[in-house]
Amino acid sequence: MVYNELRKDYLLNRWVVIATERSRRPTDFAKQKTEQAESSSCPLCVGNEHMTPPAVMIYLKQNCEIEKSMDHDDARPKNWLVRVIPNLFPAFAPPKEQTNQAQIIKSESYGCAIGHHEVLVESPNHDEDPADAELPQLTLLINAYIDRLRELSAKPYVQYVSIFRNYGREAGASLSHAHSQMIATPIVPRIPAEEMAASKKFYEQHQKCVFCDIIEKETKSPRLVLENSHFVVFAPYASVHPLEFWILPKKHASNILGLGKAEIEAFAGTLKTSLKALKDLLNDPPYNYGFHLSINRDARDYYHWHLEVYPRLSIWAGFEKNTGMYINTVKPETSAAELRKTIHA
Amino acid sequence: MVYNELRKDYLLNRWVVIATERSRRPTDFAKQKTEQAESSSCPLCVGNEHMTPPAVMIYLKQNCEIEKSMDHDDARPKNWLVRVIPNLFPAFAPPKEQTNQAQIIKSESYGCAIGHHEVLVESPNHDEDPADAELPQLTLLINAYIDRLRELSAKPYVQYVSIFRNYGREAGASLSHAHSQMIATPIVPRIPAEEMAASKKFYEQHQKCVFCDIIEKETKSPRLVLENSHFVVFAPYASVHPLEFWILPKKHASNILGLGKAEIEAFAGTLKTSLKALKDLLNDPPYNYGFHLSINRDARDYYHWHLEVYPRLSIWAGFEKNTGMYINTVKPETSAAELRKTIHA
Repeated sequence: MVYNELRKDYLLNRWVVIATERSRRPTDFAKQKTEQAESSSCPLCVGNEHMTPPAVMIYLKQNCEIEKSMDHDDARPKNWLVRVIPNLFPAFAPPKEQTNQAQIIKSESYGCAIGHHEVLVESPNHDEDPADAELPQLTLLINAYIDRLRELSAKPYVQYVSIFRNYGREAGASLSHAHSQMIATPIVPRIPAEEMAASKKFYEQHQKCVFCDIIEKETKSPRLVLENSHFVVFAPYASVHPLEFWILPKKHASNILGLGKAEIEAFAGTLKTSLKALKDLLNDPPYNYGFHLSINRDARDYYHWHLEVYPRLSIWAGFEKNTGMYINTVKPETSAAELRKTIHA
Repeated sequence: MVYNELRKDYLLNRWVVIATERSRRPTDFAKQKTEQAESSSCPLCVGNEHMTPPAVMIYLKQNCEIEKSMDHDDARPKNWLVRVIPNLFPAFAPPKEQTNQAQIIKSESYGCAIGHHEVLVESPNHDEDPADAELPQLTLLINAYIDRLRELSAKPYVQYVSIFRNYGREAGASLSHAHSQMIATPIVPRIPAEEMAASKKFYEQHQKCVFCDIIEKETKSPRLVLENSHFVVFAPYASVHPLEFWILPKKHASNILGLGKAEIEAFAGTLKTSLKALKDLLNDPPYNYGFHLSINRDARDYYHWHLEVYPRLSIWAGFEKNTGMYINTVKPETSAAELRKTIHA
């Protein structure tokens, strides 16, 4: 296998993976129709485990216990609750032999897209999206995020791990079976890098975490969507998308590796409540969500993990794409009010 | 009228206009269907001039001459060739009275979205997109870009002018009548700002323009799409989109204000040829294009204007949106080869 190329723009700190294996020829786009898999032929459904690469991690139902395991080529259990598999067309692929960090960093602007690209099948049920999932199942998913993050972030060539979900075809989901994705990269991408630099600077100037500061202000603002003992949800002040909201843990932590059982359950509940409100409010719209976190030990004090949810209600067109400046047609205060009303209806 | 809010993200140098007048309520998105205007009721078609605000500039057909004029409330000529009108729901709106720069810059993170937002109706013919337009008509459009850029960039509160086009509903065009847009902003947005900073740095280190350097290299690369006496077209090394291409003038200039007659005609021809190749190759795909330029006199030596064309063939999903890192499924070298082949077919 040949690695995908990782290229950096001439001027911008903007990286791109040239992942040609993910499509055949440019003309394939001409009449592109994303076919939604039928449940019977869905490669992520129970019974079709042979249609995917072997799972790197599975949670198995064993009587009343949940057991962590993995596939072996000859044995692919069907009694799984969550199943994590390598992406069949990975944007980032693991190194063949031990590659040291220095080599990867040296390759820089003409490097190899070394890393990992995994698919987390969230449930045996084809349609179980987070808004409607049972809380124990959603809690398992969060646990899977944590388990995989622990493993991937320990690799010497991994600098960042993006955990995200695309919901709905218009949001980029090519398979409709409930799934999240995880991409581990050999560089810290632009947005988290900028966030880390800015929060570090704030910490040096004020001796406190900027996100802790934001939480304090937003819980008293009209942009608050909900608050419980562990989390706050609000529409950020400069929301880029209509109905955008962020979920932040009240307890300072730079990533999700140290979450306790109660926090994990609270996070599952908070995620479900917020996404259910979005679903009810806007008749099941497409959305993307992504974790923002740091796996850099230095960032422990100044960075604060959170989840950002972007409903896909508008199109980024010529202006947004050429300027990096966005037009949002809904006030965050209005978004928050509508979501609050739906939650309490 | 109340100005839209201009807000800056907590951490990123990422700006957003809160433009609530562009939509009514968040729930309007729920079953959003962008209706394409029928030609008979199209507000941009000849005969419907009263359906838009008065034109700030029109090119009129007067016998064999083209005359520059504008609408007056009581007189709206119908014999126009290009018509420039204020956007009915502007993202940026002009100040009521003379506002000085210092006041605007001071307002910074909680400022007003002062500026301009104009629609350039490219032709009296509803369907005349640049790939199929007659060259004299397309030349008029480029002249209109220049005329409007000259006027808008002279305003004391304008720091940047974005000229762009959305082609096709999936690319964000809500009206199908051939039109471009122009947005003048009171700050330099992130992408041009980063480009200018990086090209300035390159100039200080190498005493030459980085884009002149890129042109020299790319004309000898497999990413070249076409070259004529005035322009080069190539698929950039780190293309973010499949089939992306850029058009650069060989003659160094930081913006289009100084273009001569021959260059304007050559640019119209180059634009038409490239977009026609894209249209033929991929069965009329949606796309966005945008000018990258500088109106800052200081940038004259180090910045080099160009046009970037982004076909809309893939979806930016959770990974791209949360990391600012992109996955492109077509090698730029392949994109260039396919476009070259189509041009020479």
